[in-house]
Amino acid sequence: MAIYDSLFSQLDVTSAQLLVTDNDFRDRDFRKQLTETVKSLLALKVIPVFNENDAVSTRKAPYEDSSGIFWDNDSLSALLALELKADLLVLLSDVEGLYSGPPSDPESKLIHTYIKEKHQNEITFGDKSRVGRGGMTAKVKASVHAAEAGIPVIITSGYAAENIIKVLQGQRIGTLFHKDAHKWAPVKEVDAREMAVAARDCSRRLQALPSEERKQIMLNIADALEANEKEIRTENEADVAAAQEAGYEKSLVARLFLKPGKITSLANNMRTIANMDDPIGRVLKRTELADGLILEKISSPIGVLLIVFESRPDALVQIASLAIRSGNGLLLKGGKEAKRSNAILHKVITEAIPDTVGGKLIGLVTTRAEIPELLKLDDVIDLVIPRGSNQLVSQIKSSTKIPVLGHADGICHVYIDKSANLEMARRIVLDAKIDYPAGCNAMETLLVHKDLADKNWLNDIIVDLRTEGVTLYGGPKASSLLNIPQARSFHHEYSSLACTIEIVDDVYAAIDHINLYGSAHTDSIVAEDHEVADAFLRQVDSAAVFHNASTRFSDGARFGLGAEVGISTSRIHARGPVGVDGLLTTRWILKGSGQIVDGDKAVSYTHRDLTAT
Amino acid sequence: MAIYDSLFSQLDVTSAQLLVTDNDFRDRDFRKQLTETVKSLLALKVIPVFNENDAVSTRKAPYEDSSGIFWDNDSLSALLALELKADLLVLLSDVEGLYSGPPSDPESKLIHTYIKEKHQNEITFGDKSRVGRGGMTAKVKASVHAAEAGIPVIITSGYAAENIIKVLQGQRIGTLFHKDAHKWAPVKEVDAREMAVAARDCSRRLQALPSEERKQIMLNIADALEANEKEIRTENEADVAAAQEAGYEKSLVARLFLKPGKITSLANNMRTIANMDDPIGRVLKRTELADGLILEKISSPIGVLLIVFESRPDALVQIASLAIRSGNGLLLKGGKEAKRSNAILHKVITEAIPDTVGGKLIGLVTTRAEIPELLKLDDVIDLVIPRGSNQLVSQIKSSTKIPVLGHADGICHVYIDKSANLEMARRIVLDAKIDYPAGCNAMETLLVHKDLADKNWLNDIIVDLRTEGVTLYGGPKASSLLNIPQARSFHHEYSSLACTIEIVDDVYAAIDHINLYGSAHTDSIVAEDHEVADAFLRQVDSAAVFHNASTRFSDGARFGLGAEVGISTSRIHARGPVGVDGLLTTRWILKGSGQIVDGDKAVSYTHRDLTAT
Repeated sequence: MAIYDSLFSQLDVTSAQLLVTDNDFRDRDFRKQLTETVKSLLALKVIPVFNENDAVSTRKAPYEDSSGIFWDNDSLSALLALELKADLLVLLSDVEGLYSGPPSDPESKLIHTYIKEKHQNEITFGDKSRVGRGGMTAKVKASVHAAEAGIPVIITSGYAAENIIKVLQGQRIGTLFHKDAHKWAPVKEVDAREMAVAARDCSRRLQALPSEERKQIMLNIADALEANEKEIRTENEADVAAAQEAGYEKSLVARLFLKPGKITSLANNMRTIANMDDPIGRVLKRTELADGLILEKISSPIGVLLIVFESRPDALVQIASLAIRSGNGLLLKGGKEAKRSNAILHKVITEAIPDTVGGKLIGLVTTRAEIPELLKLDDVIDLVIPRGSNQLVSQIKSSTKIPVLGHADGICHVYIDKSANLEMARRIVLDAKIDYPAGCNAMETLLVHKDLADKNWLNDIIVDLRTEGVTLYGGPKASSLLNIPQARSFHHEYSSLACTIEIVDDVYAAIDHINLYGSAHTDSIVAEDHEVADAFLRQVDSAAVFHNASTRFSDGARFGLGAEVGISTSRIHARGPVGVDGLLTTRWILKGSGQIVDGDKAVSYTHRDLTAT
Repeated sequence: MAIYDSLFSQLDVTSAQLLVTDNDFRDRDFRKQLTETVKSLLALKVIPVFNENDAVSTRKAPYEDSSGIFWDNDSLSALLALELKADLLVLLSDVEGLYSGPPSDPESKLIHTYIKEKHQNEITFGDKSRVGRGGMTAKVKASVHAAEAGIPVIITSGYAAENIIKVLQGQRIGTLFHKDAHKWAPVKEVDAREMAVAARDCSRRLQALPSEERKQIMLNIADALEANEKEIRTENEADVAAAQEAGYEKSLVARLFLKPGKITSLANNMRTIANMDDPIGRVLKRTELADGLILEKISSPIGVLLIVFESRPDALVQIASLAIRSGNGLLLKGGKEAKRSNAILHKVITEAIPDTVGGKLIGLVTTRAEIPELLKLDDVIDLVIPRGSNQLVSQIKSSTKIPVLGHADGICHVYIDKSANLEMARRIVLDAKIDYPAGCNAMETLLVHKDLADKNWLNDIIVDLRTEGVTLYGGPKASSLLNIPQARSFHHEYSSLACTIEIVDDVYAAIDHINLYGSAHTDSIVAEDHEVADAFLRQVDSAAVFHNASTRFSDGARFGLGAEVGISTSRIHARGPVGVDGLLTTRWILKGSGQIVDGDKAVSYTHRDLTAT
């Protein structure tokens, strides 16, 4: 109590100790007065701290007997929660919650929602808590008791100070007990780790199939999509209706909706990808290491990909196409607003995958497993591809050790050199900003050579941009020259009808500006002077660098890559718009006739490049 | 005191409060008795807790005046440390230590070692601690006072319970004050972040140079290495002598030593790499997107690499060669035992780099900046390449968000099919295990088809392996059949003259075994049946898969890649033995004549592959 008192005092909170015994609860007057006492204390902002009055209590070991009303702090708390009609009972333990086995066993998993029917015979309890009577068995018993009587209970760790706040914020920590829990969860939660392992097994079987059979699977899926169009549409309409009812934004509802003809177009896209040259097993390099010893570097699937995508259910089909074509296994985690659409699309696709491969090639994570938990599976997932907002991408990048393919920022520049064809410059600037301002490849900053600063061209383009509704901000030079408000930062993606303008001395100043403030996504120069253009193309250190073309071309489809996985601003593995290639890695295949190394004396190395032959 | 008492009690530690005032310290008898009191308490395992006796103290605001002996808990602690001749004074604050500016400012850096001459005029102090009198100014004053009198002081955060233990373990946390600190550190610590930024700038200038000039730089470095051989050798000998004196292992001293002829061979290797085809700017793919709109995918440096290498100073030169050839900037962090060798090699190499590029292209991290700090610089370092023990690699992999190129485990298998040429199988097994048992490409597990289990061949190979000194362990089947001890785990790298043997039903069982227990490094099949071999080559999911060849061929030099950066078991970016290619990424270059997208109506896409032309 001294500790409680001291700790609460530090927070300027007063606490009050209430020592009770079994016998007190046998007195109806006490039970009546109890609620009033607690209410009065709370009204005075005094925290009541209950404990058994050990000095007065006559309880003896074994503490838990049938005559007791409570027998430890766990059952006391459940009793009090019921008496006081609490909204929620939080039990703090020395572990994160209830585990499927002893918490010290790495195989044990935290149970997020306790379902009596499912868990009561499954769980092996560990040792008792090292502090006090009780332990997890007592906590679970008390929790089940309170939950059945209508008081939700959460068991969580008392070691993290913020856990109580997290519980009150509705975050998913600890173990929840609720009388309706059995109605919420599917009877058998499929574990994401198991899904990843199964997806890898299936992908290995897929990869082992002859190229023609892999192609046929995709054609079968395409047919199945069309054959089940009606059912898919029904489920999609249900999602759309639910989203409308829930008052989601119109743009989200629009992204959710599978327009008429969309399923046919998805099926056709699947067929196009099926008819691509087989990307697996391509020989990228062939070297004769020594007589009769031939080394090949061949393309090969990465393994298991986790795709996190927001609303669009069509993304599921596109990504599945690319994954199957490239021989990878997939875990898909879609937005909950597209739940029914995703489920039916997933069902149709996986049912069309033959048993020789296995439908678990593509796992749809529909359980309550959240993204942070999936991101921990770095031993069974090889690559994460987030498809959604900048925020989603940066959040995922910052919270996983799994490589992430994607881009957070798209701060694209257009630099207009003094040698530019000014009519061309005007068209490119307008297209780069106006064609789709929310696109990651839209222009955010316009850099203009200083010799153009006092020309009519700059005034004209400003008028043009403003006419199109673009709000203009300036760097230090442009804002004073053109009398426009100053941009707060050059490293800023508007993603809307707004852009920054700045005047630069020459192409080298433009290059420095872009390398310093850009996001290495896509940058373009408009210039007729080819030496200037070459310097720009060589020295701008971005994934895509353009000459006399709009930044909007930076896109997988426009680049001719077929379906697009995403645009990568990472420098490792894949950069810029990424198609099937980004889902492949390599393997080295060496074919010999018994060669050994023996201190490099056993063979005579030739290292002859046979790639071209 | 109630809190101290309670908290210590929970740990079964008794504490005792000692309330003191300024006046007590003016009494010589008290000061004499003080040490005895504390010693007696400590002998009884009682922790003395000192505080000012506020109820008795006559101190008034302003608390710090010239008449005081102490004026807050910070100066009281310094006073006590001196009186008691403490080994170390630890001051716990609400921040991690002393920062170069207000700790809330993200620009502020934690000062690991306080050097009065350097820091006293540099630091801006933040607000006072929210708890109690004092604050950082008082702590620093007290620390400097104690340190100058010979008591080392560490200021660290009191919020992390384990900090005191970390301090006692000598871990580098908080800020250290020591009277000799100015002798330890270089006068100006170069900041690793600044080094990374400078390396990127230099790499961009390097990349902008014509191919011939980049080649010439490497040839100049090669000449400089030979011209400075004597000086390099002197420094290397000093390292070797110091390592011998310090009693380092012989193998480490051997790796440290630059053998006669080594410098010439390093210079020649540098020349060979200089004469390679320029790896930068190679056109990997060329596509006509539309009339007059040509897209190229070209090879391009990654940016800034961090290489962490152990003892071998020759690694510095090899890695510098590859980095310069591939246009990357470098941060090098070598082992402290090779300090002088690394410093002179770094000096010779960077002095040969022209000012148009800048010697900061290659930064040698010689300050006390530790690896964990470098690994945090994920915004300025693009790739980490650890060169050293498995332990180093896994430690780095588990503690950074920067992509890591390397491998932790090399659990390589050789599978002998029933169709094998048995004499060939014998040679390959012996080479794979014996040629260099510590190599990551050495065989750890021998899998044998069940039809060979009762043949003489298996008995003969066991005799051969034992004759070579190999200790054998068996899987469940092999251990009972061959009467050898059971292996504890199939996922085990011996890295020594030991290996596991197991009997498998057929090639598919071998494939499953390897995919389940291997480390996806290098695996080999010995078989004459080509269908069996093909299944193995197709389905074993490892970086390198061999047929009728020793696993020992898995090596950059043997693969003909020139110098080797390392062997990657990661599935992303680069896989298997990695040469210059692994230090490159790609950029997309689009050359147009004013094309815009305009909702994809403005151009008509052709997507014609021009790569072969």
